[in-house]
Amino acid sequence: VTAEGGTTLAAKPAGSGTTYETLLVTTEDDITTIKLNRPAKKNAITTEMYNDIIAALEQAAKDDSVITVITGAGDFYCSGNDLSNFTKIPEGGVDEMAKQGGDLLRKYVKAYIDFPKPLVAVVNGPAVGISVTVLGLFDLVYATDRATFHTPFSQLGQSAEGCSSYTFPKIMGSAKASEMLLFNKKLTAAQACGLGLVTEVFPDSSFQSEVWSRLKAYAKLPPNSLALSKQLIRSMEKDRLHAVNNAEVERLMERWTSDECFNAVMSFFQAKAKL
Amino acid sequence: VTAEGGTTLAAKPAGSGTTYETLLVTTEDDITTIKLNRPAKKNAITTEMYNDIIAALEQAAKDDSVITVITGAGDFYCSGNDLSNFTKIPEGGVDEMAKQGGDLLRKYVKAYIDFPKPLVAVVNGPAVGISVTVLGLFDLVYATDRATFHTPFSQLGQSAEGCSSYTFPKIMGSAKASEMLLFNKKLTAAQACGLGLVTEVFPDSSFQSEVWSRLKAYAKLPPNSLALSKQLIRSMEKDRLHAVNNAEVERLMERWTSDECFNAVMSFFQAKAKL
Amino acid sequence: VTAEGGTTLAAKPAGSGTTYETLLVTTEDDITTIKLNRPAKKNAITTEMYNDIIAALEQAAKDDSVITVITGAGDFYCSGNDLSNFTKIPEGGVDEMAKQGGDLLRKYVKAYIDFPKPLVAVVNGPAVGISVTVLGLFDLVYATDRATFHTPFSQLGQSAEGCSSYTFPKIMGSAKASEMLLFNKKLTAAQACGLGLVTEVFPDSSFQSEVWSRLKAYAKLPPNSLALSKQLIRSMEKDRLHAVNNAEVERLMERWTSDECFNAVMSFFQAKAKL
Repeated sequence: VTAEGGTTLAAKPAGSGTTYETLLVTTEDDITTIKLNRPAKKNAITTEMYNDIIAALEQAAKDDSVITVITGAGDFYCSGNDLSNFTKIPEGGVDEMAKQGGDLLRKYVKAYIDFPKPLVAVVNGPAVGISVTVLGLFDLVYATDRATFHTPFSQLGQSAEGCSSYTFPKIMGSAKASEMLLFNKKLTAAQACGLGLVTEVFPDSSFQSEVWSRLKAYAKLPPNSLALSKQLIRSMEKDRLHAVNNAEVERLMERWTSDECFNAVMSFFQAKAKL
Repeated sequence: VTAEGGTTLAAKPAGSGTTYETLLVTTEDDITTIKLNRPAKKNAITTEMYNDIIAALEQAAKDDSVITVITGAGDFYCSGNDLSNFTKIPEGGVDEMAKQGGDLLRKYVKAYIDFPKPLVAVVNGPAVGISVTVLGLFDLVYATDRATFHTPFSQLGQSAEGCSSYTFPKIMGSAKASEMLLFNKKLTAAQACGLGLVTEVFPDSSFQSEVWSRLKAYAKLPPNSLALSKQLIRSMEKDRLHAVNNAEVERLMERWTSDECFNAVMSFFQAKAKL
Repeated sequence: VTAEGGTTLAAKPAGSGTTYETLLVTTEDDITTIKLNRPAKKNAITTEMYNDIIAALEQAAKDDSVITVITGAGDFYCSGNDLSNFTKIPEGGVDEMAKQGGDLLRKYVKAYIDFPKPLVAVVNGPAVGISVTVLGLFDLVYATDRATFHTPFSQLGQSAEGCSSYTFPKIMGSAKASEMLLFNKKLTAAQACGLGLVTEVFPDSSFQSEVWSRLKAYAKLPPNSLALSKQLIRSMEKDRLHAVNNAEVERLMERWTSDECFNAVMSFFQAKAKL
């Protein structure tokens, strides 16, 4: 499950992993870092990139690192699902597109649910859509004070994924979660931290240095104890999370073939074209 | 399931619904508003009013509106269960009263659990008892800074309902929930917001204008996406909520026939009579 | 199930219970107080003390008191598991030690899960390890502003217990819980209160007087209503809590026999010896 085949792997220098078109993956100081690397597109996730992230997570699960980090290149953390994914209609039409999209999404979220080591989000800028909803599946979420958190699903005629329909009400209660998941409320980093979605917020000027010095210290802790403790915490609700993931994907596949969603996404592209 | 029969419905002008003795129900801008309308009694809920609210929710579930709002007329949101309900002993005695009360309560809370669209509480003043406990079943809770939240169950020898024995610990943790549900702690609006029971607090002077302009904007979002997203979130725990409702009602029926509860309610009426 | 046999009990003056080597147990104003009483050792919990606390909780469950309080003598609330417990290797070796330790821990946490009355922690100073993790099983947690909350499991090659792997993510969300349970983050009282682990924080100078006057008032509420309401809230997740307790103990028994844990505990003793 590598992007460029096993020979590439063997040719790599120590301390780095497989190379991906859309990601920068490195291992240093017992930390594997998966950096989303389409800064010109605000790290929007294409179909290829979903597959790359799944592969990178599978590799990180097996390597010798203690902690795995996901972060973004450039000013954005991640602008969510690349809506151009909706414009590549396969031979089977919209139904086939929904099926393929659903299968990929299910597999993508599953990779987070099943991830066996501490998983840390280093949120270096604004986060949108699925890059926000999966945060409930991370163990730590550090954010720059420039970060924002936005899940505009209903605006696009869609519905929540990434297990957020379960994790967000659990983390912040339904009165707060619904304003995000139903009504597109955008949170500041401080608000997201107050609600428990974010572990801690740092001033942007010292964000990278503070976060990485802390993570390097954490990565020196007994690795089995960390991994087994994380699995213990996650095991309490793993079956539940898989069931939630399946239910969310079912709902979204129905949404993607609805007129309501089609019209909402079309409006989005038209508004964008006018700019 | 209407208060005055189907013919009344047909005779109504557009934009309004069935008429009720104890409620004002209107539909405007894709929002159905159920206003508790016994301001002289601080909107305390009588047996008739429980039935009216159940009927109004069933009607709102089926009408064309996108969002449903519950609010109160006058200075109070709702002072909870009208304790005069306890003074109308039916022919079967206290046991029969407990049975009838339990059946009604179960049906009342069920109407909230099963409500299929976004449900919003516009808390225009103090809220007491069951008007507080069902808040965990709403999707948004907006409160004026004049609002307070009080559930004095143990003081009356009773126990929690409205699924609060499950939703409150989930929203705020058991250390905070128990002080409300066991020890009658009254919260300010700001405290309730900090704990996640309330979505946002507004200054009383601008409360109505700010809340309604926001709700009108929300009601223009794709309606199926909103309803299906809400159902998705709720579906994760629907069976659980029904089980909790049943357990709470069982416990309360036992409480209502206990000497402890009888004495506590008598003390309440005596203290009131002395004022 | 008393520490010194039934005859001791009969000889006690009214208002006090069984005597224990490691605890002070008193009943006054309808409140039974279990005070950890090894102040010279910061109330670290020895094997004997685990058994004493279990016995004291079983007794408090049956006595006439309305509320049960756990607190500490001296400046500390409790420094957690007495690590000298690990130095008393029984005849069967490390495996037997792990088995006996696991059985005791399971029984200890079970006593909290099954406790039938309102249980209050009066946290009079720093709290460490298992004295922190079981807080999710209390109904109220009052803390002096001198208190801190620290669970350094991974530092010692161990893993979370006291049902904290379930209750902490439920109370504060996984992004906050993991920093405590995986990465040894120490919280101030104010931070623990903000996250919902603590009900309320008081200035140290007025801590005892404010807390006890409040508890005395609470203890005058209808006792059945309090106990039954607490049981109602707890019943929603009792099976879950027992399953979590079992899973945590299994994991810890494995940890205790691991080289990683052995080396981490040895390092702890060596660092201590150097002071």
